[in-house]
Amino acid sequence: MVGVDLGGTKIAGALVAPDGALRFRRETPTPAAAGRDAVLDACAATIAQVIEDARAVGADPMAIGIGSAGVIDAAGRVVSATRTIADWVGADLRGDVVRRFGLPVAVINDVHAHGVGEAWLGAGRGRASMLLVAVGTGIGGAYVVDGNVLPGAHGIAGHLGHVPSAEAAGVTCTCGRDGHLEGLASGPGIHAAYLRAGGDPAVSSAAQVLALVDGSSTAPAAAQSAAELAATALGRAIGGCINTFDPDVVVVGGGVAQAGGRWWDVVLGAAARETLLPLDPGMVVRSALPDAAILGAARRALR
Amino acid sequence: MVGVDLGGTKIAGALVAPDGALRFRRETPTPAAAGRDAVLDACAATIAQVIEDARAVGADPMAIGIGSAGVIDAAGRVVSATRTIADWVGADLRGDVVRRFGLPVAVINDVHAHGVGEAWLGAGRGRASMLLVAVGTGIGGAYVVDGNVLPGAHGIAGHLGHVPSAEAAGVTCTCGRDGHLEGLASGPGIHAAYLRAGGDPAVSSAAQVLALVDGSSTAPAAAQSAAELAATALGRAIGGCINTFDPDVVVVGGGVAQAGGRWWDVVLGAAARETLLPLDPGMVVRSALPDAAILGAARRALR
Repeated sequence: MVGVDLGGTKIAGALVAPDGALRFRRETPTPAAAGRDAVLDACAATIAQVIEDARAVGADPMAIGIGSAGVIDAAGRVVSATRTIADWVGADLRGDVVRRFGLPVAVINDVHAHGVGEAWLGAGRGRASMLLVAVGTGIGGAYVVDGNVLPGAHGIAGHLGHVPSAEAAGVTCTCGRDGHLEGLASGPGIHAAYLRAGGDPAVSSAAQVLALVDGSSTAPAAAQSAAELAATALGRAIGGCINTFDPDVVVVGGGVAQAGGRWWDVVLGAAARETLLPLDPGMVVRSALPDAAILGAARRALR
Repeated sequence: MVGVDLGGTKIAGALVAPDGALRFRRETPTPAAAGRDAVLDACAATIAQVIEDARAVGADPMAIGIGSAGVIDAAGRVVSATRTIADWVGADLRGDVVRRFGLPVAVINDVHAHGVGEAWLGAGRGRASMLLVAVGTGIGGAYVVDGNVLPGAHGIAGHLGHVPSAEAAGVTCTCGRDGHLEGLASGPGIHAAYLRAGGDPAVSSAAQVLALVDGSSTAPAAAQSAAELAATALGRAIGGCINTFDPDVVVVGGGVAQAGGRWWDVVLGAAARETLLPLDPGMVVRSALPDAAILGAARRALR
């Protein structure tokens, strides 16, 4: 199959074998500002390159799976999305790719695809249930049971950033509401908390804030407090999710999860304090699978 | 089938037809203080009466389903429980009933059984997914997808009372932790909040507190504030669950849900303010199905 991860920043695709082996990976920046048609063209170009590379060695992809930014309906259309990609809402992504390539096409949300990939070949491998918590520009997630993501009645299941958080009280979320987890514990949330705590305006990202915390034993107080508060809020929310879902494993992915060292220790500690059952080692882990969304999208196409 | 709801207060059983028709209902107080063997005897006596009544009219139950207090493992044993029923942990509930009656027996948690019943014949009927939120002495729940409850890796899925709640900050939960929903928004939580707000010590239950709020346009301030705070916390948590699960419908059951009129309006309002999608009328409803746990237990035995 061809698997594609279509996000607001980049479009990545590859040929994925039934055993998950990934070849002919291609990546291109998402022409997000240029809007829907440009993004559909870029997506198609990526797929065409992968298919061309595959055919050059005698492989012939039978289906295409796409994990895309936005809320995706059962027909593979984008029914809602943030404004990251201009004019993305309404895109008939599945129909467009079917018309261009004449192959079976499956489209799901990119975070859901990430979850399916992690459950297939990552930290959820061999486990009956896995909750993905993706912490980056936003906070999303996916609950995968027996290899299938539960997409929800409207395709929006897994919006874990939009749960009430005591630590985020008074902080406005990206959705406009007060006190949601995402407003405090996402990448931009951590950076904003750092600035609110009096941090240096020259520090321009959550990754830099977390690097300050990891870099020395005497981190600047603003970085320390922002990282601690955000990690506590996230860890408590994860603990609440464990009490709610009782998954076999929780996998924390996304850019922030890769960046934070001490941040991670606080997340684990806060989660462990909330759970009804003792938190086994290995029950909450960080993602270590590259291209999980490509793999999950391809896996979905396989079904 | 015979369906049984085995709780800390009462044991209720009935004959349940494949279409859900319920006959020969029997109920007996749970001899909780007398402990495991007495409770197993009382459960068996209830089942025996139902079977006797059924056979008297020529019906012959083919299986027994039990929804029981406590965390139930795949073998139908009680692996953990509150202290409501003395010595309940370790009870081989399924084995005991199989030995006594020689019929196939299915045992699940009582809140999970409630969820299955609601999804089968109650407010979740005909819907692909349903989240039950049961608010009584504790706060529990069950997520039912295509008629099957998701029990979790350790059978504890649905402990919705044990999620962090901003409104509950500083309140100790029944589990010993700080700031969980159950500590504030359960029946005992509402009563305790009322007393903390300076309420009359002669008022002895959440039902009485909520009756004060419903009873007059000038409710005592303590009752008003306790009901408002608890309902806000519960509604916000339900909103967070909607963003997380995206269920077709949320059904709120349990004793507190039956008691509170104005409380319910605050719950609905708080939930609606949290959800990413507009909250359709009928998306969050109160349970109106008597004996949902008996029905769900019987349904489980049918499978």
